[in-house]
Amino acid sequence: MKSLVDELLESYADCGGINHLTGVNLPSKMAVAALTQDLLHIIFPGFISEHQVSMADLPRETALQLDSLQKRLEIEIAKSLDMLPIAGQNAGSVTLDFLRKLPDVRGLIQTDVEAAYQGDPAAANKEEVVLAYPGVEAVAVFRMAHVLYELGIAFLPRMMTEWAHSRTGIDLHPGAEIGSHFFIDHGTGVVIGGTAKIGNRVRLYQGVGLVARSLAKQVERDEQGHALGGKRHPTVGDDVTIYANSTIVGGDTVIGDRTIIGGNVWLNRSIPPDSVALYEAQQLSIHPRQRNNGDWVI
Amino acid sequence: MKSLVDELLESYADCGGINHLTGVNLPSKMAVAALTQDLLHIIFPGFISEHQVSMADLPRETALQLDSLQKRLEIEIAKSLDMLPIAGQNAGSVTLDFLRKLPDVRGLIQTDVEAAYQGDPAAANKEEVVLAYPGVEAVAVFRMAHVLYELGIAFLPRMMTEWAHSRTGIDLHPGAEIGSHFFIDHGTGVVIGGTAKIGNRVRLYQGVGLVARSLAKQVERDEQGHALGGKRHPTVGDDVTIYANSTIVGGDTVIGDRTIIGGNVWLNRSIPPDSVALYEAQQLSIHPRQRNNGDWVI
Amino acid sequence: MKSLVDELLESYADCGGINHLTGVNLPSKMAVAALTQDLLHIIFPGFISEHQVSMADLPRETALQLDSLQKRLEIEIAKSLDMLPIAGQNAGSVTLDFLRKLPDVRGLIQTDVEAAYQGDPAAANKEEVVLAYPGVEAVAVFRMAHVLYELGIAFLPRMMTEWAHSRTGIDLHPGAEIGSHFFIDHGTGVVIGGTAKIGNRVRLYQGVGLVARSLAKQVERDEQGHALGGKRHPTVGDDVTIYANSTIVGGDTVIGDRTIIGGNVWLNRSIPPDSVALYEAQQLSIHPRQRNNGDWVI
Repeated sequence: MKSLVDELLESYADCGGINHLTGVNLPSKMAVAALTQDLLHIIFPGFISEHQVSMADLPRETALQLDSLQKRLEIEIAKSLDMLPIAGQNAGSVTLDFLRKLPDVRGLIQTDVEAAYQGDPAAANKEEVVLAYPGVEAVAVFRMAHVLYELGIAFLPRMMTEWAHSRTGIDLHPGAEIGSHFFIDHGTGVVIGGTAKIGNRVRLYQGVGLVARSLAKQVERDEQGHALGGKRHPTVGDDVTIYANSTIVGGDTVIGDRTIIGGNVWLNRSIPPDSVALYEAQQLSIHPRQRNNGDWVI
Repeated sequence: MKSLVDELLESYADCGGINHLTGVNLPSKMAVAALTQDLLHIIFPGFISEHQVSMADLPRETALQLDSLQKRLEIEIAKSLDMLPIAGQNAGSVTLDFLRKLPDVRGLIQTDVEAAYQGDPAAANKEEVVLAYPGVEAVAVFRMAHVLYELGIAFLPRMMTEWAHSRTGIDLHPGAEIGSHFFIDHGTGVVIGGTAKIGNRVRLYQGVGLVARSLAKQVERDEQGHALGGKRHPTVGDDVTIYANSTIVGGDTVIGDRTIIGGNVWLNRSIPPDSVALYEAQQLSIHPRQRNNGDWVI
Repeated sequence: MKSLVDELLESYADCGGINHLTGVNLPSKMAVAALTQDLLHIIFPGFISEHQVSMADLPRETALQLDSLQKRLEIEIAKSLDMLPIAGQNAGSVTLDFLRKLPDVRGLIQTDVEAAYQGDPAAANKEEVVLAYPGVEAVAVFRMAHVLYELGIAFLPRMMTEWAHSRTGIDLHPGAEIGSHFFIDHGTGVVIGGTAKIGNRVRLYQGVGLVARSLAKQVERDEQGHALGGKRHPTVGDDVTIYANSTIVGGDTVIGDRTIIGGNVWLNRSIPPDSVALYEAQQLSIHPRQRNNGDWVI
């Protein structure tokens, strides 16, 4: 077995960029998963735990949970700051800043649950929305990660949203700006890029992407690793609905307020407010099935 | 730390609808996940357990598994009935009614495995279909959840199909009616709404949605939380094939028997039987790549 | 409870094809999941483990990991060979052949990480790419599974890529041939069929499928279970970019070198090199929103 080990060790020496063997520690995927799950407990009290939490026990339980969260968050935030320091900041103060924003974040998430319940005939009550809607979970994790992103923390927010992406198929970059009453239904395949801006009361269905043009050349970055060149992802106004699998491309593309985008649309230019944009059924070619050499032709 | 706890407790008092701190217990996500996994063991004996089950041990093993399942199912069903009672029903009798349907459910699932094996050249044998096809797992969980849905149980069936959704990217509402020999290939992004009707021998590819029109107004519901207004999702006939990423919208949309729908279609009207409906390649704009200010233009 | 058990046992006797109660053992899903996770540790040393690995400890840690991996891999490979033997091969020699290829596989994966970093403005550094990009994980698992597939091993490679599919929404059949510097961004819903061929420096976005025509008749297979009839999935040249949700169909479809395919395209014929193929925005029907009987019409 010795030579196999040696070959691998040589490969570790030769292939840079996919090893992380020296220098500071990286945030741990497993620790971030556990942290994010516990943050969801704090956001939705009584929904996730195995045992029933009584009103009498709530203050003590909440204090215990926060205490544990604070310690573990500080460790992962410290790792991010070791990799990419922020002048005048330390892990303890950033952790506190983040936790102090949680009540505001809960206020926003309440509007998201409300939007899901009001908008979806399949939701029998709000309990079902919190228990069973992947979009609600993904958006709740995004809203917390966005706070960390705004505080300048690297790695951790993206690892949080990727944890939710793996569970829900919904890929929300923590840099996006998203208004209140946001509802993603079904959600698998949704992608929202890091410079997208979304208004209030927007509804997206599965497979909708707010994405960048890919210009097939090497990206230029500043010292923090942020890409130069500004906004790459679309802007979506208030009260917009975008149906399943539509792809909106480009940083200067704007979908106006109250506009509806049909499903399966590829859109690389702006659409005015109060519009409907879709492919008409008559553009489809519809003809009888026929055989060619015994096979069906498509 | 005290003030942080107080702020959160105030938020729990202020933000209704995303707490569940009083009243009856909700079904537990973790318990439902374990239950659904164990139900799959019962459906596919010998496929999932770590150790080999011999024919001699099978009766004893099956009895032990059923006994454990029955007790745990009854607990979760009781929670659903506490939230939304059904006149004349108790958790014990509903649990038995459900378990007695499992042999019939296995008969249907066998037709699904058969359809995957007969229809997919990538399947080398039926063992591979059961071991590795996410569509088979998602449909098996759906068929069990549908039985609970028909028995009137809230929460639990949707939590079961959402467990499968998280694992497979396939979102099947337990209310849908789906015929035999149903095959979802690859599957990520598939969505089938709760009032959809699907015939026998239907094949869907990844990203296909049978979804509702979204009317952007507040939903009206009855006392059980069910939406008023009837069928919102399409009807699909026998022997239909729908290719990847197509979205079929609306409760009065009907795809006729033996029809083929191409991929990436947005369809909000009916298609007759024995048809092919698709976008022709000549509708694409195809031109040489060109540069504009050094960037590729799309 | 007795009669319930008896009914299930009768169902096991009646419904063949979804039981596995006799004969040889199948590979275990749980064992394959743990193995694949541990292989990723070996590929990306220092990225996944909870504790920091020092350069001094690396040889000893690597030797221990390889020793454990070798034993467990041999067990699962032996199960595959029991089901579908290969003349002149035993599990021990196949396991060694596979492990000896890992340094080469790492070399290829390094090009994939490089392509993600160079091509995606959202990536701040290569550490973020390895820690948070699901496409990198799915392609790394695919590259290892492809080695096992080439060695003729059944079940195991597909179970490895399906483990990654469940985590990432990216479904890469281990039989596909994929060049260097391969980048799948976001990735949910991507499907690449087992006879697809992909060149170097190709970039795919979420929801892109390289898939087969479905001919709605029974598949013919050889003794090993492989479908007769040859190549069923497309060929993609070097330096091609395919935007989100596009579906490319058929074994004789070729996308030429340096060509760009827009999003949401359904394509069942070849596109020449150095082209752009997309739907123009003017093909969309864009009109003011209007109401019909109080509902918005789409």
